Amino acid sequence: MSEFDLISRYFSGFDRDALVGVGDDAAVVKPGPDKRLVVATDTLIEGVHFPADTPADSVGFRALAVNLSDLAAMGATPRWFTLALTLPEENTIWLEGFSQALIRLADRFGIGLIGGDTTRGQLSITITAIGEADQVLTRSGAKPGDKLWIGGYPGEAAGGLTCWARRHESSAEIQRLVERFLYPEPQVSLGYDLNRRANAAIDVSDGLVADLAHLCSASQCGAEVDLDHLPLSDALLSVVGGEGAQSLALSGGDDYLLLFTARPSESFESCFVIGKMTEAPEIELRQGGDVVTWDKGGYRHF
Amino acid sequence: MSEFDLISRYFSGFDRDALVGVGDDAAVVKPGPDKRLVVATDTLIEGVHFPADTPADSVGFRALAVNLSDLAAMGATPRWFTLALTLPEENTIWLEGFSQALIRLADRFGIGLIGGDTTRGQLSITITAIGEADQVLTRSGAKPGDKLWIGGYPGEAAGGLTCWARRHESSAEIQRLVERFLYPEPQVSLGYDLNRRANAAIDVSDGLVADLAHLCSASQCGAEVDLDHLPLSDALLSVVGGEGAQSLALSGGDDYLLLFTARPSESFESCFVIGKMTEAPEIELRQGGDVVTWDKGGYRHF
Repeated sequence: MSEFDLISRYFSGFDRDALVGVGDDAAVVKPGPDKRLVVATDTLIEGVHFPADTPADSVGFRALAVNLSDLAAMGATPRWFTLALTLPEENTIWLEGFSQALIRLADRFGIGLIGGDTTRGQLSITITAIGEADQVLTRSGAKPGDKLWIGGYPGEAAGGLTCWARRHESSAEIQRLVERFLYPEPQVSLGYDLNRRANAAIDVSDGLVADLAHLCSASQCGAEVDLDHLPLSDALLSVVGGEGAQSLALSGGDDYLLLFTARPSESFESCFVIGKMTEAPEIELRQGGDVVTWDKGGYRHF
Repeated sequence: MSEFDLISRYFSGFDRDALVGVGDDAAVVKPGPDKRLVVATDTLIEGVHFPADTPADSVGFRALAVNLSDLAAMGATPRWFTLALTLPEENTIWLEGFSQALIRLADRFGIGLIGGDTTRGQLSITITAIGEADQVLTRSGAKPGDKLWIGGYPGEAAGGLTCWARRHESSAEIQRLVERFLYPEPQVSLGYDLNRRANAAIDVSDGLVADLAHLCSASQCGAEVDLDHLPLSDALLSVVGGEGAQSLALSGGDDYLLLFTARPSESFESCFVIGKMTEAPEIELRQGGDVVTWDKGGYRHF
């Protein structure tokens, strides 16, 4: 199959409202009047960001989900994306699974696949997602006194990776954790809601503490995390135990939950307060009233 | 060096008019009022799109140039880009050369590097370039009777690749060809000029005949190419001879020249008429009045 046939077979016809979609030198779209554009680019590489035996549909899902999560962290509405797909060989079964999961997720948010490139090499996917917003939410608006929130149960996806070898077992807990790694839910609606109500947000891709450090650094403040309030799911507790669960919740980055700060008067459904923002430029973890040390730096690509 | 240090050292501070640039979850920019957005994504992979011993500055230059060329073919003004860089290892000398050439080219066109990702793996660069236009030029507007134009001397970059092993020789001709491969000039100003005066355009990335076929197919017409008028540079003729030069001019895609069609009354400086558009949906090559056959399909990635 030529590059053109491949694009036409798996990746054409999903460009939605594009004025010019897949098949010309570049795509053409029309942003809403007076909108700001929000642009995110993330790469997933086999063996680095997902195990080599990850199902194709998970690879397609995650490649888009991680970018939608970045847009969500800015409070943006996703609109369009481009796909740069590098494949070691032509594999139609893999391409079917990959493209269908990608398009299914795109359809859920009504966003168009407007262009890209296919090349040959080590399996790698780079997506650039473009969203729109009237105003945006950044990492840098946190204020001392803000409550610190997390948008769900952290550590589950990382838990899924720790029991990857057991992923075909029928345990509902293992299944849940592995699913959370394979199909992380980008918190697009939450991000949209946060846009006018939160002060700062980041999506947890490097690990809760590591990304909290980025948020604190951008906002020039510190944070106190109350480990007694860190939400640990029953599934995670049952598979890796209490200590393992806390460690994964603090260092696992694959859930793509939103971590955000807001005035104490704000409240967010299905989210958990895990601490507060402080003046001192440091992150303090507290458990049972005591300060605890924690030296795991979170996930780093280099 | 962590991923964050790397981004901060080589790729920060070049985001120009971005409202939020490198360092948050996503970049934020404000398009001009009522503009259309033009979006191109192209990947370069070591060993596929450039030899493994290509200098770092050429890799940086070409990665951006090929995307600017796509925007030029749409008649768009480039504004911003994101960079997804996958590196096998940290190499500061390589990163210096790569980033400086990339930024120098970006500066020439006044465009901002607004975001991206750095990951570890086979050397690969994916750039998404975003431009603006009031109206765009596509592949599909060619009309029978249009003159067919090429924006310079095709085949030189491909000629540079054929004498790659001799690239350190002092011959001015070899140097010129190799330079054309290493630093292809995106025809941004020409594209802008074509926007209102040409009927259709494409940038030659797969080869002149192959890309002419895409243009014809999109425009539902055919073309007659007069090989007697195919411009062959002295450098190319001197290095590969007459037959080789013609073949490279027809099949070499690395020059990133614009191929375009316009009403017979239009004229374009430094460009060459090489034929005309026809009703019949086929491409005819003519030399000395005779139809010649040519079966080289141009460059294909798959």
